[in-house]
Amino acid sequence: MTQILFAQVYKEMFPFWEEITESDRNYICENSVALTYPKATNIHNGTECSGVILVRSGCLRLYIMSDQGKEITLYRIHAGDMCMLSASCVLKSVTFDVFVDAEENSECYVINGQAFSNVADRNPNIKIFTLETAVSRFSDVMWIMQQILFMSMDKRLAMFLSDEIARTGSETINLTHEQIAKYIASAREVVSRMLKYFANEGIVEVSRKGIKVLDKKRLYNLSL
Amino acid sequence: MTQILFAQVYKEMFPFWEEITESDRNYICENSVALTYPKATNIHNGTECSGVILVRSGCLRLYIMSDQGKEITLYRIHAGDMCMLSASCVLKSVTFDVFVDAEENSECYVINGQAFSNVADRNPNIKIFTLETAVSRFSDVMWIMQQILFMSMDKRLAMFLSDEIARTGSETINLTHEQIAKYIASAREVVSRMLKYFANEGIVEVSRKGIKVLDKKRLYNLSL
Repeated sequence: MTQILFAQVYKEMFPFWEEITESDRNYICENSVALTYPKATNIHNGTECSGVILVRSGCLRLYIMSDQGKEITLYRIHAGDMCMLSASCVLKSVTFDVFVDAEENSECYVINGQAFSNVADRNPNIKIFTLETAVSRFSDVMWIMQQILFMSMDKRLAMFLSDEIARTGSETINLTHEQIAKYIASAREVVSRMLKYFANEGIVEVSRKGIKVLDKKRLYNLSL
Repeated sequence: MTQILFAQVYKEMFPFWEEITESDRNYICENSVALTYPKATNIHNGTECSGVILVRSGCLRLYIMSDQGKEITLYRIHAGDMCMLSASCVLKSVTFDVFVDAEENSECYVINGQAFSNVADRNPNIKIFTLETAVSRFSDVMWIMQQILFMSMDKRLAMFLSDEIARTGSETINLTHEQIAKYIASAREVVSRMLKYFANEGIVEVSRKGIKVLDKKRLYNLSL
């Protein structure tokens, strides 16, 4: 019964699903499991092959970590999206370590990496899909890296927001992204994207009413 | 005549060359040019599609740049290797800007990006080759990013080497990578890889005799 569920979901999520043989489709479904990860579970840890993870509900966080335990979030994977970098036996050319945690209770379908890899070896379109998924994520990763490395944009925005709530005594900042960009000598697009990053991290909440600071302590720490 | 030369080189460098039709092979050769870039020329600049660049002699440097003009070298492309990230019309999922300069006088074969893309659309193995080339480069990029972001390993190593030449009055440091790793609380592999990065940047020369500092000023600037 579960295998029928898998097939229904894979049909939606994999553009190659209808192109591969029935026997390959069955093989992928037979090598799938439905798992629920409780909030704060570590799902993937560095180099092992944890398989292809499809998120059905909840949210996974993908990050890199230093020897001292410092983390940088690369991106989050929400319901309806999938994690490829956890399948190191599929993406053999990826040789750096990433970590994946469940950030909420998360229901996932996990396809065994070796099984997925076997089918990909027979079907070039699966390989292309897998690699393209990885490459498009790297563009996001490069963006956040550049902002942190070059501009200290995370720091400059955090500093501005911290100063602003201290100055006004309110936790909500009623400025447009355009205005903030002018204050910190940046571009509107950069401010909007970095605010989205802060919002994903739970540091601020962005709405029509303005920017509400949710975690003053982390915002202050970022500004140091 | 040049087209025969192109075909000979492509046969060596592209694992898919024999698998594609003669007409596709001819089409790629017809859309190729042999160019010599003088030292210090900027070859690729951000988002435009400069095509697939194969280096025959010389060396290209691929880097990212901040609005203020600060650069971080991601990697170098030597004779016998190729640059895919410059072909943004082939790698559509790459959306960040890279820059490519000729670091020496460099003879290159350049395949028009749109022509290469047209052939790749007909041949899944070309697409796979292109994406895998990009993904494997990203692993190198992630490594250098992590070292800079987390550990300030570039800074710590530069500081140690600067202090050491000041202390001994010699430009050559006669310590093993293992010994240096102990001094800066790192691992031998990390020191070796970072020294290789410094050597590529022309800051040091690494040989059996030891580590010779070639550019004291840049080493000192890195240590700040």
